[in-house]
Amino acid sequence: MANNTNLITEIMLTPIGRVLNDIKEPMLQAGELDLDPSVRMERIKHYYLQVENSLGRLVIQDEWADLLDGIEAFSHIMVLYWPHLVDPKRRQLRRVHPMGRQDIPLQGIFATRSPARPNPVLVSVVRLLGRKGNTLSVAGLDAVDGSPLIDIKPYIKPRGDELRATAPDWMKQLHRDLGIETKAAGDKP
Amino acid sequence: MANNTNLITEIMLTPIGRVLNDIKEPMLQAGELDLDPSVRMERIKHYYLQVENSLGRLVIQDEWADLLDGIEAFSHIMVLYWPHLVDPKRRQLRRVHPMGRQDIPLQGIFATRSPARPNPVLVSVVRLLGRKGNTLSVAGLDAVDGSPLIDIKPYIKPRGDELRATAPDWMKQLHRDLGIETKAAGDKP
Repeated sequence: MANNTNLITEIMLTPIGRVLNDIKEPMLQAGELDLDPSVRMERIKHYYLQVENSLGRLVIQDEWADLLDGIEAFSHIMVLYWPHLVDPKRRQLRRVHPMGRQDIPLQGIFATRSPARPNPVLVSVVRLLGRKGNTLSVAGLDAVDGSPLIDIKPYIKPRGDELRATAPDWMKQLHRDLGIETKAAGDKP
Repeated sequence: MANNTNLITEIMLTPIGRVLNDIKEPMLQAGELDLDPSVRMERIKHYYLQVENSLGRLVIQDEWADLLDGIEAFSHIMVLYWPHLVDPKRRQLRRVHPMGRQDIPLQGIFATRSPARPNPVLVSVVRLLGRKGNTLSVAGLDAVDGSPLIDIKPYIKPRGDELRATAPDWMKQLHRDLGIETKAAGDKP
């Protein structure tokens, strides 16, 4: 790489707040990857339903509350958060069967939405229901209760090239099996 | 907040690689906010054109190269990166006139896509042109040359509720003035 005189080796983030949510547990617990495949798929379906119907709150630290001014004018926001329940050791994973499905070939972590990744900054697009002071009410957030918040951005729907985005068959199959609508940016498969 | 016994106060990220890109400078330099408004808008338009036509490379550190396996099967990816040229002092900004336009009322930073924000993890959706070993070729990336990479995820186009996302008039006006198509997640306005 050219110009490595100013290489940044570490980036420090300070959470801006926390998630309060109906979702109390991650999609799959550590031990559950050994579950019978059909039981596991039912577990995952149940989780997706929970997320779809979840009502959560994003509680911003008081010192940052006025950074929310004007956000009520957007119908959707992009939430960046930290999956604090992911075992740090799992950030070393290199390739996985998506959602633990042995019938899907191993994929590199960057080709999946696995929360276990080198820098697990997860991105979700959610509906913004309202704001009261330092708190946003949102629907459809997949973050587990207590997740540290990293950033909040307005979501702008794609109008151009992104609408023609294509995904490989394994992901389409997974979505069909789960009977879910593909979310724009939910960090799950 | 409930359960603050395990509050995380700091999050440490390690860049997974670096951006090589045609874009050598941020959209607006520090001194340029004082430019004549019409000159500034021309500067911004030029920047958007540059981004639209940019060809860049994401160079992943060798140790993480196999995490890319399978990514070639996606047409678009989501790139999380760090805007290393943003002066750390500007991360304290609270409200701004979007793109420096005095005719747009002040907005809280979280209601904008300003790169100057408490945790400037920027999110861009780009076209993936190819992969060669530890390097991805991409089109349309707004990251300045040399930006540290935080994460790479597959992009899945929205099919549901997000397609009905709405934005306030000031943002629509800004996009009209710039004559640009709204990108899904480009961190600019």
